[in-house]
Amino acid sequence: MNAPYDRVALIGLGLIAGSMALAMRRAGMTAEIVGTARSAETRAAAERRSFCDRVVVTAAEAVANADLVVLAVPVGAMAAVAAEIGPHLMPGATVTDVGSVKRAVIDDVAPHIPPGVHFIPGHPLAGTERSGPDSGFAELFDNRFCLLIDEGADPQALTRLADFWKALGAQVETMDADHHDRVLAVTSHTPHLIAYTMVGVADDLRRVTDSEVIRYSAAGFRDFTRIAASDPTMWRDVFLNNREATLEILGRFTEELFALQRAIRKGDGDHLHAYFTRTRAIRRGIVEAGQDTDAPDFGRGGRS
Amino acid sequence: MNAPYDRVALIGLGLIAGSMALAMRRAGMTAEIVGTARSAETRAAAERRSFCDRVVVTAAEAVANADLVVLAVPVGAMAAVAAEIGPHLMPGATVTDVGSVKRAVIDDVAPHIPPGVHFIPGHPLAGTERSGPDSGFAELFDNRFCLLIDEGADPQALTRLADFWKALGAQVETMDADHHDRVLAVTSHTPHLIAYTMVGVADDLRRVTDSEVIRYSAAGFRDFTRIAASDPTMWRDVFLNNREATLEILGRFTEELFALQRAIRKGDGDHLHAYFTRTRAIRRGIVEAGQDTDAPDFGRGGRS
Ligand SMILES: NC(=O)c1ccc[n+]([C@@H]2O[C@H](COP(=O)([O-])OP(=O)(O)OC[C@H]3O[C@@H](n4cnc5c(N)ncnc54)[C@H](OP(=O)(O)O)[C@@H]3O)[C@@H](O)[C@H]2O)c1
Ligand SMILES: NC(=O)c1ccc[n+]([C@@H]2O[C@H](COP(=O)([O-])OP(=O)(O)OC[C@H]3O[C@@H](n4cnc5c(N)ncnc54)[C@H](OP(=O)(O)O)[C@@H]3O)[C@@H](O)[C@H]2O)c1
Repeated sequence: MNAPYDRVALIGLGLIAGSMALAMRRAGMTAEIVGTARSAETRAAAERRSFCDRVVVTAAEAVANADLVVLAVPVGAMAAVAAEIGPHLMPGATVTDVGSVKRAVIDDVAPHIPPGVHFIPGHPLAGTERSGPDSGFAELFDNRFCLLIDEGADPQALTRLADFWKALGAQVETMDADHHDRVLAVTSHTPHLIAYTMVGVADDLRRVTDSEVIRYSAAGFRDFTRIAASDPTMWRDVFLNNREATLEILGRFTEELFALQRAIRKGDGDHLHAYFTRTRAIRRGIVEAGQDTDAPDFGRGGRS
Repeated sequence: MNAPYDRVALIGLGLIAGSMALAMRRAGMTAEIVGTARSAETRAAAERRSFCDRVVVTAAEAVANADLVVLAVPVGAMAAVAAEIGPHLMPGATVTDVGSVKRAVIDDVAPHIPPGVHFIPGHPLAGTERSGPDSGFAELFDNRFCLLIDEGADPQALTRLADFWKALGAQVETMDADHHDRVLAVTSHTPHLIAYTMVGVADDLRRVTDSEVIRYSAAGFRDFTRIAASDPTMWRDVFLNNREATLEILGRFTEELFALQRAIRKGDGDHLHAYFTRTRAIRRGIVEAGQDTDAPDFGRGGRS
């Protein structure tokens, strides 16, 4: 297909950028892909997997003559990257990002975008616990949502970016940044913090129980360990940059947890049963929305 | 194969009992399988799937002349079932159970076991969020642990029961009941409570965010919803019957969560990063122990 863009610059060459490049190839896009990453190791890995046409050393070089620039670095690194590329952006180009938090990224990046360049923040709701240039795969975005932030974006530039993501397999929706951050605090950020916490507790106890916690890890906990194997830098940056929404949801979470804890202590089986019944409905909703499978193999049908 | 037993009585015909019957068939065991369940619906479903040789109406009937009796009902229902079958058990028979909690089940069941009958509690660490007679499958126990409680069990009866579980695909280990309950509080019970809580919070917010929480549910949260779709009765009984160990682990959990919450509030990125790095090791341990896969498909290789 004709690409919506002629030259795409990927800043950062990890899971998300690598998967984008592979999905572009799969779609048969003709765009030239220029990539860069901070470390020589990652650049070498990208060369080896050859998902870019060219790998260059600096972000400033990468964005030269690019009509789409994708910032695919941790949220905390966006400001510095934006400052570096700002002066080198081509007039008429679109800059987007894939960061898991949106308000903080806008605050960090927007001041560096010169007039005549479109900045349309984005967030593909697709990921795994893997990171780095060897972890990408072309199917990552298939049937997943990609949220684009429309706070007065240029309509043509927005449509072009949406077409790009659709070609990568995603379903595109728009929303504003604060709303994004609130929704993601519920569906992603707080669950990750909780999983990290539970696995941390188990890790403490591991020493006591002579690694039986690992040996006898059951369903449920195993999923927590997978979530808690996600990249520490990415997640540190998420929590530091979506602080308010995460803390608010955490507050509600501990409130509910204390109520359940009290029910256990008091032996209030009715309260527990009613609560556990209510939570089943939301699962059905997710399965119906096509965002997970309900296959008998534990709902683990994967990404097919 | 020759079955370690001639007649196996399954009391309860849900996920676990159904899977046991199917796994016995798969192993080519010659034992007669007699099953019973509380409701006529479940008994009819079991007839339809024909995983039993005979389905009978009462537990008392089911255990007649059975040399293995498996109690596969919710933990809170064990006492009544044991009281019912006690007078009908065959001398020399073995009674086991599959309940997720062990000390409370022993307290409830042991008083009803007559002299000359062996009671060896068990717990297969295998399950899904599904329940009922249509949810079982023969591979459920493959490569999973089955923990048998050895608190002075008859060695021959123990070996026989262990051989039975091995034929069903499981790896058998023994431990004492209190230890079991502590380990499972960490690896299964508390994680389930937390998942239920988080999904409950999301469910509250769903009304506010017009079901976007469902629509944009991301990795992590989706897993929580699957866990929180588990059977309410089973889990109510688990928490009511493993109260102390669960409350203790919950206490540690909230302590750690508050420390992370404070780190977010203060912007202490180093604390967050260090914590998130530590939790990766335990995941590696689980993958190395063969209890989950590390496949690029999100570690969702399933049960192969
Ligand atoms: N993983 C997910 O599940 C997921 C899902 C949706 C969105 N996101 C977002 O996507 C972005 C990238 O995530 P990812 O999973 O692709 O991460 P990743 O695999 O760890 O890749 C990150 C890339 O950013 C580069 N980088 C890291 N720190 C940098 C810095 N301080 N300055 C310049 N470059 C730096 C890395 O270079 P080196 O390799 O040379 O260090 C690497 O190429 C993040 O903002 C994340 O929030 C992630
Ligand atoms: N599911 C898991 O992940 C898992 C894993 C390991 C161990 N376990 C343990 O295995 C046991 C059975 O669980 P499951 O998943 O197989 O449950 P299930 O699919 O819900 O089946 C439970 C069976 O017990 C019967 N039953 C329920 N309440 C009863 C009562 N008050 N009196 C008599 N019979 C009753 C049910 O009969 P009706 O259908 O007629 O109501 C049904 O046949 C539980 O103790 C659980 O803790 C479960």
